[in-house]
Amino acid sequence: MKEVRLSLFGFGNVGRALARVLVEKSAVFRERYGLEFKVVSVADSSAVVWLPVGMNLTEALNVKETLGRLSAWTNDYEVFNFSPVEAVREIDADVVIDVTNDKNAHTWHLAALKEGKAVVTSNKPPLAFHYAELIGEAERRNLPYLFEATVMAGTPVIGLLKETLLGDSVEEIEAVLNGTTTYILTMMEEGASFEDALRKAQELGIAERDPSGDILGIDAGYKATILHCLAFGPTTFDEIEVRGIDGISPEDLARAGKAGRTVRLVASIERGSVSVEPKEVPKGSPLAVSSTQNAAVIRTDLLGELVIQGAGAGLKETASGVVSDVIKAALKV
Amino acid sequence: MKEVRLSLFGFGNVGRALARVLVEKSAVFRERYGLEFKVVSVADSSAVVWLPVGMNLTEALNVKETLGRLSAWTNDYEVFNFSPVEAVREIDADVVIDVTNDKNAHTWHLAALKEGKAVVTSNKPPLAFHYAELIGEAERRNLPYLFEATVMAGTPVIGLLKETLLGDSVEEIEAVLNGTTTYILTMMEEGASFEDALRKAQELGIAERDPSGDILGIDAGYKATILHCLAFGPTTFDEIEVRGIDGISPEDLARAGKAGRTVRLVASIERGSVSVEPKEVPKGSPLAVSSTQNAAVIRTDLLGELVIQGAGAGLKETASGVVSDVIKAALKV
Repeated sequence: MKEVRLSLFGFGNVGRALARVLVEKSAVFRERYGLEFKVVSVADSSAVVWLPVGMNLTEALNVKETLGRLSAWTNDYEVFNFSPVEAVREIDADVVIDVTNDKNAHTWHLAALKEGKAVVTSNKPPLAFHYAELIGEAERRNLPYLFEATVMAGTPVIGLLKETLLGDSVEEIEAVLNGTTTYILTMMEEGASFEDALRKAQELGIAERDPSGDILGIDAGYKATILHCLAFGPTTFDEIEVRGIDGISPEDLARAGKAGRTVRLVASIERGSVSVEPKEVPKGSPLAVSSTQNAAVIRTDLLGELVIQGAGAGLKETASGVVSDVIKAALKV
Repeated sequence: MKEVRLSLFGFGNVGRALARVLVEKSAVFRERYGLEFKVVSVADSSAVVWLPVGMNLTEALNVKETLGRLSAWTNDYEVFNFSPVEAVREIDADVVIDVTNDKNAHTWHLAALKEGKAVVTSNKPPLAFHYAELIGEAERRNLPYLFEATVMAGTPVIGLLKETLLGDSVEEIEAVLNGTTTYILTMMEEGASFEDALRKAQELGIAERDPSGDILGIDAGYKATILHCLAFGPTTFDEIEVRGIDGISPEDLARAGKAGRTVRLVASIERGSVSVEPKEVPKGSPLAVSSTQNAAVIRTDLLGELVIQGAGAGLKETASGVVSDVIKAALKV
């Protein structure tokens, strides 16, 4: 049995879903991979809880869910006020996991790599703005820096591009990478106004209270940037073209519908060129996904057209991507 | 630069497509992976051509395409009458590649592994009948034994199951794994009789002269067996249920069509249970693929439903899977 120490940053919905998977499937991971995970720290925005011998995750889940914040934990566990950079330096761990939405997390990702720790992240901005620096640092140190859950949640489009198709050259990727906009467009297709569709999406928890990241195409843009980095080499979000769905009217959708088409927020990725914009797609096409399903159509020189469709959001679904990367990192460290 | 010696068995359409990819993309593979492939032997049913310093593949392609068989090669190359078992023992190579359709190839796959050679195969029966023995031997010797191209050509369903989704538990796979039957069923949907559709498929080279392997579901059954081995553990073709499309009438298809459905030869794979049979599927469903496209719908505990669609046949498309495995093996040996 190989014991691997995890340091978990972020204990919101995804962090807790990940913790639940680590608890519920621990016997599976022991049997399948010979891996025993020991979570040595858990951090939310209130505090870092650190126990070098490993903590009881079920208890951590209880504290967070009953008291709302980890700083309220009053028992044997040590509660710290570390900044993330301090935390990744102080806490002895093999794998640092980022399931926060800290836009400046690249600073502590780099600090973790410099401390010889592997990094697994579902947090997009570090990659969308600092891919070359992060991957460069990880490669120089021969450390895993993994990010399956940043694009299409656990649907393994990253793994597919990185670890399969080794002989192919990717020519183009077209993808629907944001479920919130798909939901809103579908409601509008059924006659709702943009405002009503957005309100409904917010009521259902599909859109956030500040929905601009989804609506304006920023979330899809981050993901498209990451896919370009992977398939064609480094770029940043600042270099890509993004237009959101805020200019789309029910009339646009009706007109498309009459022609057997629908509108989706489509990312188009070619070497040196990334755009995200609303586009008409034929109703039977692989990009005409519904609800929170995402889809990517990958064209290569040998295979022609390859389609992958699956969950693009969701708690277990995102945890799937994170835990797959944690296992990959654990087998290498 | 890492030099890797390849011993190629099979120089039919797929073998030659593979050779062409190795020639045309050699600069790509050097730059991307630091790999220099040296093909030390090529075998067809007429002869084994062996040159320990590596041979000129373009010349081999010319000989085969102008003279029809490798035994006709009369120059510096040594032409042998080895059996495959003798060949894998005699010829010094790092990776043995099987793109033959030798039903008894497991004997020389095992011999290759026992000689310390990695094996890459697109040939299905060895895996469909001897998976446990072959994988067991490879694992004991810590040698790559790779078979991406056996299922869905180069569409990386094998890689997806083996190297991504590490945290998920697969619950069920439904898949359309044979393009010939899809083609025939589509023709029948348009009113052709089974016999006419089959004849047309044979004329176009989609069905073989002896089409029974496709029509009776044997080809799809081999592939479904391999998917079960991978997702749930060893089984063999003898233990699965197979029914082909030979009992389907144009009337069956017309009835399905009126209900918004179509008929496809569907493989259903659960733990301990594999069946292949014609099934009605809704027209918009991921399994309602056309022509030589294949599709797999994979259901897991965390991700829910994941769809992968892509080429299930074709020369470059099959070479894609083989060459991806050759690169994977080369990076490990």
